[in-house]
Amino acid sequence: MTIPRSHPRYVSLMTRETLVRAWKAGIAVPEGLIAHGRGEAWDYLFGEGTSAPALVAEKAAAAFLVKATRPVVSVNGNVAALAARDVVRLAAVIPAVLEVNLFHRTEARVRRIVDVLSEAGAETVLGPRPNARIPGLDSKRAVCHLDGIYRADVVLVPLEDGDRTEALVRMGKSVLGVDLNPLSRTTRTATVPIVDELTRALRNVEKFVRELRDDPGEAARIARTYSKAGNLGAVYSFLDWRLKGLFRARPRHRP
Amino acid sequence: MTIPRSHPRYVSLMTRETLVRAWKAGIAVPEGLIAHGRGEAWDYLFGEGTSAPALVAEKAAAAFLVKATRPVVSVNGNVAALAARDVVRLAAVIPAVLEVNLFHRTEARVRRIVDVLSEAGAETVLGPRPNARIPGLDSKRAVCHLDGIYRADVVLVPLEDGDRTEALVRMGKSVLGVDLNPLSRTTRTATVPIVDELTRALRNVEKFVRELRDDPGEAARIARTYSKAGNLGAVYSFLDWRLKGLFRARPRHRP
Repeated sequence: MTIPRSHPRYVSLMTRETLVRAWKAGIAVPEGLIAHGRGEAWDYLFGEGTSAPALVAEKAAAAFLVKATRPVVSVNGNVAALAARDVVRLAAVIPAVLEVNLFHRTEARVRRIVDVLSEAGAETVLGPRPNARIPGLDSKRAVCHLDGIYRADVVLVPLEDGDRTEALVRMGKSVLGVDLNPLSRTTRTATVPIVDELTRALRNVEKFVRELRDDPGEAARIARTYSKAGNLGAVYSFLDWRLKGLFRARPRHRP
Repeated sequence: MTIPRSHPRYVSLMTRETLVRAWKAGIAVPEGLIAHGRGEAWDYLFGEGTSAPALVAEKAAAAFLVKATRPVVSVNGNVAALAARDVVRLAAVIPAVLEVNLFHRTEARVRRIVDVLSEAGAETVLGPRPNARIPGLDSKRAVCHLDGIYRADVVLVPLEDGDRTEALVRMGKSVLGVDLNPLSRTTRTATVPIVDELTRALRNVEKFVRELRDDPGEAARIARTYSKAGNLGAVYSFLDWRLKGLFRARPRHRP
């Protein structure tokens, strides 16, 4: 399907096309397509832009990454399909270990995603031949790397499943989530939940990492003063305000 | 994947599995999986139950179907995958013509969906060998049947694309939509938009058709007094109230 650049939904339609292609290439899975649809609905509600509270969470996440001793960026199929370059660049800037971490894991898909990240410029990517397990998850979903997620002190998990986010928090890690659903288990359990679209979140976090990496005092101050409850409260207020506007505006414009 | 019945998200996970299977069988398309995800997010916001205003719209839709001279029920890939039996039973009760009508149309997929509906008990299903066009749509998306959608006075279009809903309304038809997005073009342009999940909507409309088909006076009264603007206003108020509850409850329960 050819989508004209002038189409009002151009970006959204192209993103869908990218994901469908990634599924055909064995990178994304059907469940990932459904999850993307859920994200689309939320992003529409947020106005398809980064909210002020999301920006605050992105800066806090950058502060955690800068302060980390063993930071890891976790990559799944949708992340590789939609933001391979963004995630590779962010990991390089921190610098953090990249680890492929799949909910619907097959070794072939792990290898294909490693290839996608290598083509996007990654030097080392963990994923194949895992040698550790996250406690409290069933076998296939628990596997990870000793030198990656297992020993990490800070893990960025974009588009993560709630069970795994919880398991990582139980291990005592600082978990940074990226999830457009402000009520998901990932958002509720992550140490720093970023309620924003994947590529916007990754680019903003990268920008803040560049700002903070030479200013450890400021990074420490931001990590210390970040309040998850306050931040999520602001996300909810923003969404409430957005919905009121949407509901008021629409029926009048198009009766 | 085996999902235990006790899983709190059992119905939602089974529905996803059904759709993934339908996609593997060539009934649903990847774009349909993404669209389903959007619906999941909205249904979550609505509390995964029929709201009072949705029930009012379902009764109004039943009144339009009962009063119709040439009612048609339109079926696409997701509808066939998720609600073949419901849609066949509803069409039989009205009675209405069933027509397969695909956005991503291939003749092979039309035939597969006709088979699904036949297996679910349908006697006649229009779809293959279309012989008419809906004005104002590009060629592949415009095709339909003279004895089906083209000459229908009332068309039920569950999970329809906004362009086609608009085109049918421009043809002067009464269009009954089923779409969980209260702000979608289908919801805004349909004559009677039902903002509810597909199977709940079809079952409720069927129940109301059974009630109203022997009471033409009451059906006429309900169709006459239905107010789309008023009904959508009530949907928005309900959703606003739901969100406030969700946002208030969550952070306290799981800090």
